[in-house]
Amino acid sequence: MPKKFNSLLEAVRNCDNIDQQSLFSSQTDQYSFYIDSVLVGVLSKHAVPALQEYTVENQKLFFFDEQEKKASIGSWCLTRAQRQECFAVMLEMFRVEQVWPCLKNWRTEQYPIYGNKNSSDGVFFTIERAAAEAFGIRTFGVHVNGFVKLSCQSNEGSKAKTIKMWIAKRSLFKGTFPGMLDQVVAGGISAGEGPLSSVIRECEEEAGIPKQFSERAVPAGAIQYITHNAHGIQPETQYVYDLELPSSFQPKAVDGEVDCFMLLEIDKVLEKLFEGVFKPNCLCVIVDFLIRHGIITPENEPDYLYIIDSLHRTLVFPGPKSHLPSTSFNHK
Amino acid sequence: MPKKFNSLLEAVRNCDNIDQQSLFSSQTDQYSFYIDSVLVGVLSKHAVPALQEYTVENQKLFFFDEQEKKASIGSWCLTRAQRQECFAVMLEMFRVEQVWPCLKNWRTEQYPIYGNKNSSDGVFFTIERAAAEAFGIRTFGVHVNGFVKLSCQSNEGSKAKTIKMWIAKRSLFKGTFPGMLDQVVAGGISAGEGPLSSVIRECEEEAGIPKQFSERAVPAGAIQYITHNAHGIQPETQYVYDLELPSSFQPKAVDGEVDCFMLLEIDKVLEKLFEGVFKPNCLCVIVDFLIRHGIITPENEPDYLYIIDSLHRTLVFPGPKSHLPSTSFNHK
Repeated sequence: MPKKFNSLLEAVRNCDNIDQQSLFSSQTDQYSFYIDSVLVGVLSKHAVPALQEYTVENQKLFFFDEQEKKASIGSWCLTRAQRQECFAVMLEMFRVEQVWPCLKNWRTEQYPIYGNKNSSDGVFFTIERAAAEAFGIRTFGVHVNGFVKLSCQSNEGSKAKTIKMWIAKRSLFKGTFPGMLDQVVAGGISAGEGPLSSVIRECEEEAGIPKQFSERAVPAGAIQYITHNAHGIQPETQYVYDLELPSSFQPKAVDGEVDCFMLLEIDKVLEKLFEGVFKPNCLCVIVDFLIRHGIITPENEPDYLYIIDSLHRTLVFPGPKSHLPSTSFNHK
Repeated sequence: MPKKFNSLLEAVRNCDNIDQQSLFSSQTDQYSFYIDSVLVGVLSKHAVPALQEYTVENQKLFFFDEQEKKASIGSWCLTRAQRQECFAVMLEMFRVEQVWPCLKNWRTEQYPIYGNKNSSDGVFFTIERAAAEAFGIRTFGVHVNGFVKLSCQSNEGSKAKTIKMWIAKRSLFKGTFPGMLDQVVAGGISAGEGPLSSVIRECEEEAGIPKQFSERAVPAGAIQYITHNAHGIQPETQYVYDLELPSSFQPKAVDGEVDCFMLLEIDKVLEKLFEGVFKPNCLCVIVDFLIRHGIITPENEPDYLYIIDSLHRTLVFPGPKSHLPSTSFNHK
């Protein structure tokens, strides 16, 4: 039964549903996950027991500091290659022996763990995507708002009447959020891939959008939130893109990820946001789109500023490129 | 001598130059400013001595908790009217007797202090704008990106070549940041005014932009940052608007706030960003515009995500409308 929301803020906070402070508050019995003294994630409760037990040649892979509530990799496991190997073997075992439920949804896709100042790519090592939420590492994706302009004068009349949005309904057979509404194209960024190349690949694979259209996708920033649910903790960054499609073009489900595509008027999209039929983070991407395009405004949305806060949480976990943590400052 | 920047992140952090945590860290000797146990600001050092001395009929207006480093209004001063009156009289005296340097720049403009759950407008009372940074209260403004489209197909070719931006040079006689570059229109939101009406008023007053243009300004979100400088502490929210102007239209300096207006190509705007000739927060508004319009991208800007963080700091101080603090969550 889809959850109906009473306000857009409530809908957005269905995704952005835990604040960073309480992740680390002494009240919670969460373990922070450190690699080489860099905070890279938060272990979710269901993940801890197996990690406390797990050994490689009679040596524990993880060291747990009960005082500090910190988990880190045993000092014997030092090199990138060693860690890559140890985690791969462990996660494969956890999957086969069904130790972690989240691994049922195995993706055969590697996600990077960032924060390594000593490597050019900033990556410590990579892990199977399905395990990301167990370790609570920061993950990265691209979401594409596909839209059609109905009028040339984007500034005339009600903005909401000048565009329609392409919305995807997820396949009923998808492992996560089956049948829920989604962006026309969205996907996680695998290790070694950049946002734009990920957009172009996913456009082709998921919606049959050819490169000559997808390469025109306009990057329009990023949203960030932390989701805490049964699977674990997801501090996530989504690069958002706006892709204007010709009215003559019809996306088609190619790889079976999508059940169907619908071209919806904005009023209809807003209706669906409140019905709770959107995948939670996709709802946030739509709200960000509607704010950037002047459809949700300070005049028509009382929680305007609080919604923008929820769409732009600063995450303590390192990201790609700049190795400055985003809370370090150039004081004058 | 304008300060040159080595990176856009450095340029943005010239405005967003202190993180919230360190405002309240036990190391600093800052006093948090509370009204009815709501945190509404941070007193800047130069402001404290006069407030510690100040009395009304032999009663101190401020109570300072040295342990907790908290400042609050004496319990004898309870009603909105009383507080409004006491602060007005005190600040007028501080101005005339030149107690606070920041009051030299008196604006005769009232700023609201938000966080009052018992009033429909959420306001405790209002104070003279020039005193806002002494109390470190959260302030609100509107900034309008004025631009001209050079081409219809906004998605073809290099985005940067399809638009020019109208940039204002501040009057050399302005009390703050004289001669620096600014948005075509920008201003603080006074007590009782809404963002859009403030945009329409400022467009007319500052740049001679008629209502039939300004009312088409598209709200595109908000940026937030905390600036810590000699004047004090400014946790600030700027509602950002994009205003497409006809190529035939020429803004004109009306009220003497602006020295001149320049229509600049994006490459020239970027050049100026690095030269340090922009007013610091106006630079942030431009960077946000260039990100939203796909000119600064994840592919051409290594600090992309860190810059977006700096443009979207969550502020603990309450804002208008929703009385939910932006860090309270609907946990499921």
